[in-house]
Amino acid sequence: MDVSMITPAQARRLIRDEEWTKPTAGMCHGFIQANLVIIPKHMAYDFLLFCQRNPKPCPVIEVTDTGSAVPETVAPEADLRTDLPRYRVYYDGNLHEERLSITSLWKEDFTTFLLGCSFTFEQALLDNGIFIRHIEEKKNVPMYKTNIPCNPAGRFHGPMVVSMRPVKEKDLVRTVQVTSRFPSVHGAPVHIGSPDSIGIHDLNRPDFGDAVTVKEDEVPVFWACGVTPQAIAMQMKPEIMITHAPGHMFITNDKNETYSV
Amino acid sequence: MDVSMITPAQARRLIRDEEWTKPTAGMCHGFIQANLVIIPKHMAYDFLLFCQRNPKPCPVIEVTDTGSAVPETVAPEADLRTDLPRYRVYYDGNLHEERLSITSLWKEDFTTFLLGCSFTFEQALLDNGIFIRHIEEKKNVPMYKTNIPCNPAGRFHGPMVVSMRPVKEKDLVRTVQVTSRFPSVHGAPVHIGSPDSIGIHDLNRPDFGDAVTVKEDEVPVFWACGVTPQAIAMQMKPEIMITHAPGHMFITNDKNETYSV
Repeated sequence: MDVSMITPAQARRLIRDEEWTKPTAGMCHGFIQANLVIIPKHMAYDFLLFCQRNPKPCPVIEVTDTGSAVPETVAPEADLRTDLPRYRVYYDGNLHEERLSITSLWKEDFTTFLLGCSFTFEQALLDNGIFIRHIEEKKNVPMYKTNIPCNPAGRFHGPMVVSMRPVKEKDLVRTVQVTSRFPSVHGAPVHIGSPDSIGIHDLNRPDFGDAVTVKEDEVPVFWACGVTPQAIAMQMKPEIMITHAPGHMFITNDKNETYSV
Repeated sequence: MDVSMITPAQARRLIRDEEWTKPTAGMCHGFIQANLVIIPKHMAYDFLLFCQRNPKPCPVIEVTDTGSAVPETVAPEADLRTDLPRYRVYYDGNLHEERLSITSLWKEDFTTFLLGCSFTFEQALLDNGIFIRHIEEKKNVPMYKTNIPCNPAGRFHGPMVVSMRPVKEKDLVRTVQVTSRFPSVHGAPVHIGSPDSIGIHDLNRPDFGDAVTVKEDEVPVFWACGVTPQAIAMQMKPEIMITHAPGHMFITNDKNETYSV
């Protein structure tokens, strides 16, 4: 089966039936995929405010009504308790388990955030003939904690996490242009060049994901990363927090292009 | 005094000292001006969520920490209780009074929202040689309730309010291009052409502001309007709500161009 060409509804059906439990990269070509963060209502205002104050690492796609697992705007027929291939459940900030469904854990005070992910702008780069090293090397994108502080909100505070993609010098201008068109899914890079100047001292030792090759004629380019809000929410040690498992995203009904300016 | 060339700090000083109590249009050329909405904390989550779900009419520039009148990001040395030339105070959804300062009314549970305003994209239109009728005719921009529903959030729901500017057919394309670059301050138009198709039956009878001339070779162009969140919050009849008086905006330290993509 070529999962790149099935519809989001078909993909979510496969996932709900547990016939697809793998990462979603490459599924449903051209459709927005989203990060998932579920937290109790009492933390939701500060978290939403944190996202508002840090739109580059925390681009909000949708926030459900508290207690509802239905993303009314981006996929009104979906169920966020079953329609991601794999979830992570944290208690008091510690990873407790991975699950294929969270229906049995659902509570009336759960508030669900869907956040933009880099798949959207990566597709736009590929469409422009700009290759992406971690895809070539079949790895996870390398991610790093920086010395760039996020704007705090309530108890939420901490450094921005960035992802890195090596880009040839001749492609730098086009890379900025292409990704700038998607401000609601991380958008333009936050930094081009010296890792040291944003507090990254060894590209070969990422904090999350895998190191990738950076060639002679390439410059490291850094984007704000959707791991930021998860990492920062985790520090708050909420009594319960549920996220997607890395790479196991929620597939929306929205086309990538509808998010461009 | 040419107030178009003074700095935002100078303008806010004049306003704080009550030496300037008039509208702020034309002050501090090139700097972002903002709408103000102050509501009690217990309404703030639903209002922030409403803004997140309706970014075109409700572009959030900044939300202060509850109880703080300092916009840490856009003007950290300002005081939102004194630095707007005129405020409106509503009790239970009814206009109670206009004031030059709200310091004596301040409460610890006040949460302040600064929302983008159309001055930013109007300047960009003028810079492109596209004239703006209500400025030529020295009127307020005409605003209309539409049949376009906003996405509800909690108790906040209602129709989108739009502003209208007549544009010559030959300028329509450039008008869309220029305003699209400012998605965080209303951005591209929501509608071009027939008023009837968005529920407006008489352009000569706006719901807010003044009617303007629409000439033979011009097309009405409609933008989501910052009056929307105020009008909708008003319907909730909060025990207290404070806004800027129309046209009497907050002047930030941010340059218009920093909000463009």
